[in-house]
Amino acid sequence: MYIIGVDIGGMSVKGGIVGEDGKILCKAGVETKTASEPDVIIADTVSLINNLMQKARLKIGGIKGLGLGIPGAIDSKRGVIVYSNNINFINVPIVERLRGYFGELPVFIGNDANAAALGEMRFGAARKYLNAVFVTLGTGVGTGIVIDGKLFEGVSSAGAEGGHTVIVADGEPCSCGRRGCFEAYASATALVRQTKAAMEKHPDSLMSVIAREKGRVNGRTAFLAAARGDVAAQEVINRYIGYVGEGIVNLANIFRPEVILIGGGVSNEGDALILPLQKIMDERCYGIHNGNPRVLVEKASLTNDAGILGAASLAL
Amino acid sequence: MYIIGVDIGGMSVKGGIVGEDGKILCKAGVETKTASEPDVIIADTVSLINNLMQKARLKIGGIKGLGLGIPGAIDSKRGVIVYSNNINFINVPIVERLRGYFGELPVFIGNDANAAALGEMRFGAARKYLNAVFVTLGTGVGTGIVIDGKLFEGVSSAGAEGGHTVIVADGEPCSCGRRGCFEAYASATALVRQTKAAMEKHPDSLMSVIAREKGRVNGRTAFLAAARGDVAAQEVINRYIGYVGEGIVNLANIFRPEVILIGGGVSNEGDALILPLQKIMDERCYGIHNGNPRVLVEKASLTNDAGILGAASLAL
Repeated sequence: MYIIGVDIGGMSVKGGIVGEDGKILCKAGVETKTASEPDVIIADTVSLINNLMQKARLKIGGIKGLGLGIPGAIDSKRGVIVYSNNINFINVPIVERLRGYFGELPVFIGNDANAAALGEMRFGAARKYLNAVFVTLGTGVGTGIVIDGKLFEGVSSAGAEGGHTVIVADGEPCSCGRRGCFEAYASATALVRQTKAAMEKHPDSLMSVIAREKGRVNGRTAFLAAARGDVAAQEVINRYIGYVGEGIVNLANIFRPEVILIGGGVSNEGDALILPLQKIMDERCYGIHNGNPRVLVEKASLTNDAGILGAASLAL
Repeated sequence: MYIIGVDIGGMSVKGGIVGEDGKILCKAGVETKTASEPDVIIADTVSLINNLMQKARLKIGGIKGLGLGIPGAIDSKRGVIVYSNNINFINVPIVERLRGYFGELPVFIGNDANAAALGEMRFGAARKYLNAVFVTLGTGVGTGIVIDGKLFEGVSSAGAEGGHTVIVADGEPCSCGRRGCFEAYASATALVRQTKAAMEKHPDSLMSVIAREKGRVNGRTAFLAAARGDVAAQEVINRYIGYVGEGIVNLANIFRPEVILIGGGVSNEGDALILPLQKIMDERCYGIHNGNPRVLVEKASLTNDAGILGAASLAL
């Protein structure tokens, strides 16, 4: 039997057909039309799922369940997207809506970062831990929290929004309405903003050359320029990592997990990101010089497929 | 049968003999000699307990257990104060040390804010909730977290340090070694610092008059002056409450509890503190305008005796 995992993100809707061992049979994706009505994204999701089943030559009877990971406040018990500012959904009973298309197929939803946490626990790096905080550095910053092997979601699944905790009072505006959230400083979106600001200030930096080569500024621009020795880019990276560090040390002091797992697009930078974060953690985590247990910082192992595998794990 | 609760704080060691119904038979306190060796504080604690038993005419056989609430990283399972920066204890096996004085009496320890959370759950306002975050605004800022009716402490009881989460990156130095922690802005200590700074800037403010009347600046100075219409004092209060608000909305977004309970010395200001905090919570909590459940802000009900009752509840 197979499961289908669909990850609805701010940039794309990605789906895959997944075996119970975590092997992905096939996958596909479409751009997220965030400016449109929820109906358009739902219709695109339905087409994506049908295409996947065709591609894998599977009928609905061969599918055990469908899991959807969605950014924002997702009431997993009621099957409702309560509020998702990245894709502009408010109070959408998506499980009920999808039931119209797939008959008796069980449909499960969850916050995308929570789903990623579940996926890492089931299929990835977190298999060996009981207590972990997952931090996804993507369009936004999501956090998924595992306590004693179980997902922690708060009342009405509305908690675990670590991306929406202020780390710079009165700082940059955040999509949630507050100012200075972790997300507003540590998302890939924030990194692009920080990179662009540095490029304006240092027009001769390698960052401009790389951005021209790639056709645009993205989350990799400053990392690539820094790796080639560009000083202004290294400053961007140091500052960005400093912000990520503040956020993850905060989460470590609150949850004191065994590990903080870093996922999302920016985590593909690997050691250039993870090693300085571990250094910050080892320097600043509460009581760390006085006998409190160390908190590890590791790259989430599922990276590119984390969304699909996480979503799929909701249906297991 | 009775229990003894002892609350070791940065300013004083307070103890009480408590009935299983939460009634306090008698209580006493001594100043905390923080500059001395841990031995001095332990000896003072032992005298305090002996005095309490004499006062209540109770012998060790009439006592069911002894609970101690202590600030910092307390490994409740091992009975060790791992690290307490407020009272300068590092790796002190206090349960073993006290056993030498009280024979077979069961001794339990816990972080003071966690103990306060337990106390409120057992004896106070939180009895009607299953999910609560307790925030103590005292010498430091402690947080105690109750999830589904149980204390959450993290690995080695080293979590739940919400006071040590940065809300102002690169801000005021904190006793934990970081800069800009919630504690460095929202403790009574921070409020005194903010009040003094405003008094220097506005020497004609009522705050100076009140401080002279009372003999010193304390956490009440600005609240008292603001209540009498002093504009500079009101600015101090608004800014202070703004910082407390950032911290509690952060905790609400992470835990999404039913209630945030405010305790500690500053909570005695009552509605002047709680009502503006509820307003901030209702305005800024994640997804609150889009269907996410409301998080209540309430004054912890045990206030002055919270430390003693919390510590006592550790022994129940």
